[in-house]
Amino acid sequence: MTTLFAEISMSLDGYVAGPNPTLDEPLGEGGEGLHEWGFALKEWREPHGREGGETNASSEVMAESLARTGTAIMGRRMFSGGAGPWEDDPKAKGWWGDEPPFHHPVFVLTHHERDPLTLGETTFTFVTGGIESALDQARQATDKDVAIAGGGQAIQQYLRAGLLDELHVNVAPVMLGGGVRLFEDTGRPDLELIGAVDAPGVTHLSYRVLK
Amino acid sequence: MTTLFAEISMSLDGYVAGPNPTLDEPLGEGGEGLHEWGFALKEWREPHGREGGETNASSEVMAESLARTGTAIMGRRMFSGGAGPWEDDPKAKGWWGDEPPFHHPVFVLTHHERDPLTLGETTFTFVTGGIESALDQARQATDKDVAIAGGGQAIQQYLRAGLLDELHVNVAPVMLGGGVRLFEDTGRPDLELIGAVDAPGVTHLSYRVLK
Repeated sequence: MTTLFAEISMSLDGYVAGPNPTLDEPLGEGGEGLHEWGFALKEWREPHGREGGETNASSEVMAESLARTGTAIMGRRMFSGGAGPWEDDPKAKGWWGDEPPFHHPVFVLTHHERDPLTLGETTFTFVTGGIESALDQARQATDKDVAIAGGGQAIQQYLRAGLLDELHVNVAPVMLGGGVRLFEDTGRPDLELIGAVDAPGVTHLSYRVLK
Repeated sequence: MTTLFAEISMSLDGYVAGPNPTLDEPLGEGGEGLHEWGFALKEWREPHGREGGETNASSEVMAESLARTGTAIMGRRMFSGGAGPWEDDPKAKGWWGDEPPFHHPVFVLTHHERDPLTLGETTFTFVTGGIESALDQARQATDKDVAIAGGGQAIQQYLRAGLLDELHVNVAPVMLGGGVRLFEDTGRPDLELIGAVDAPGVTHLSYRVLK
């Protein structure tokens, strides 16, 4: 069976989004700082239609992750653009625009039934049957690995259910002082350190979750 | 002025001690796992009177830290051996035994006045005048840097007061699911990543705290 891995950026104090999210600041106060290391990369800028950018130790990490990913699962907040009253709006197209950067099937965990939505080369399928159903569908749609693209709550759910095989955390050199924690009541799963990459403005930590 | 740096081991989920500490398990359930990377090192075992051990990428990190440290500050819980009813026992000698591994002056933050205690080559001075008083005394006693040896609450206090210059976090590949968090209401100080070291069973993260 292929690997289910989660990859997410976290502040040093353990948050994946800052406090007080709004539509203008969907990652909460200070939350953009979690992703500055990525925004600086040529490998991020090109698929997002932006020029310039640098290539550094994070580029290889990002390329490896892209290469192994066949399908992805994401929480409804990540699809709709952060926590807020708009997150369950059935008309929302997400904050991904007309050309989402995924280019592979994405399965969105939600409580609201909805027809699949295709934007550019990405089809979002809305799954109301729970995390195991989403994982089954994501695995059936590819021979490659399945990524949990976030957010924190989706990762927590898979971790608590013992379904997560690998955890990749990009630790950004910021503290957010509040917001959404990546690890809240996630128990004591056994981890094995795969390794760490020291990159400009970020540290990439990789762990195997032992069953 | 010399640098005030904190160095501490933290679980991936942000804890510096596990839940339910006891005298037998002062670091709480699972808390020993935070320090396994250190226990395995020759550089840790020798000053603690134990044979064997390995030399790896953590050895240099530990040697650099020892070389720069002139004096240290610690919280009362770290002196007395974890949280519990014994932590304010005025007769307690701490859990450091007759030959504590410090070999330099240590200033203990406490609310209880007490005469200095010399064990082997280490003198513990008990400071009731608050964190700034302890820092003044620690700086006056050396030309080298001052370390905050822990625990989490002492580091939080110096961080919140804007007195901390550097933060060194050893991320252990464990999750504790509860206990004492390193970062709780510590606000949003600006950080700069100094670098990371990928070592066996631990990742050493170093940050400058920008004022």
